[in-house]
Amino acid sequence: MSDILNQLKFDDNGLIPAIAQEAATGEVLMLAWMNRDAVAETLATGQVCYYSRSRNRLWRKGESSGQTQKLVELRYDCDGDTILLLVEQTGVACHTGRRSCFFTAVRDGAPVEIAAPLVAPAKLYGGAKS
Amino acid sequence: MSDILNQLKFDDNGLIPAIAQEAATGEVLMLAWMNRDAVAETLATGQVCYYSRSRNRLWRKGESSGQTQKLVELRYDCDGDTILLLVEQTGVACHTGRRSCFFTAVRDGAPVEIAAPLVAPAKLYGGAKS
Repeated sequence: MSDILNQLKFDDNGLIPAIAQEAATGEVLMLAWMNRDAVAETLATGQVCYYSRSRNRLWRKGESSGQTQKLVELRYDCDGDTILLLVEQTGVACHTGRRSCFFTAVRDGAPVEIAAPLVAPAKLYGGAKS
Repeated sequence: MSDILNQLKFDDNGLIPAIAQEAATGEVLMLAWMNRDAVAETLATGQVCYYSRSRNRLWRKGESSGQTQKLVELRYDCDGDTILLLVEQTGVACHTGRRSCFFTAVRDGAPVEIAAPLVAPAKLYGGAKS
């Protein structure tokens, strides 16, 4: 574990960006941040854990919404400064109720919403599931 | 253009992370950074331009190696703080000569190289093509 952690370059805030990609489809779901503890916990448990920059604490994905991410494989890049997480996403990754956070595309110079919510956010956060 | 730029949140250094994904296959190629000028140029020209944090200047992908990225679509996430670039990669994205920068996977707790170079780095950078 420490071997892996020593391969990674954390920034001045002790964080590294992590891209979550649906393993089965290749869909890019989201980008969030991890600190050393989040990487270690994710590798140890097989459930993705990020570091929330707004809450300044570990963020076990799905802890409020139930929309967990099971780790299929953790990869990192040539510079060791970005992580790619292949995951199995339960439900939706985005807090807006969409599968992916990247639901806005620039087309003909204007933003276009290319995916609709699959579930109402109120339903996701109405009652904590985990 | 300014409409789009105003939707994006640049960090304290004026940068935003950008994920490059091969449009045809879904392969995640790399993560790099953009400033406002890089986003504007990419949208205007249809050729991906990043901002190099090590060189402190715009980095027109492929300017040294010839391994350019043609923009298929620019998307951004729900918070406006990450960009997803769907691209057509010419040749290889990684400076090591591999298609993707994410060629190291953690398997059984150890790093494993899962892709070999398709071209020698010396060949990529021996003579500037563009």
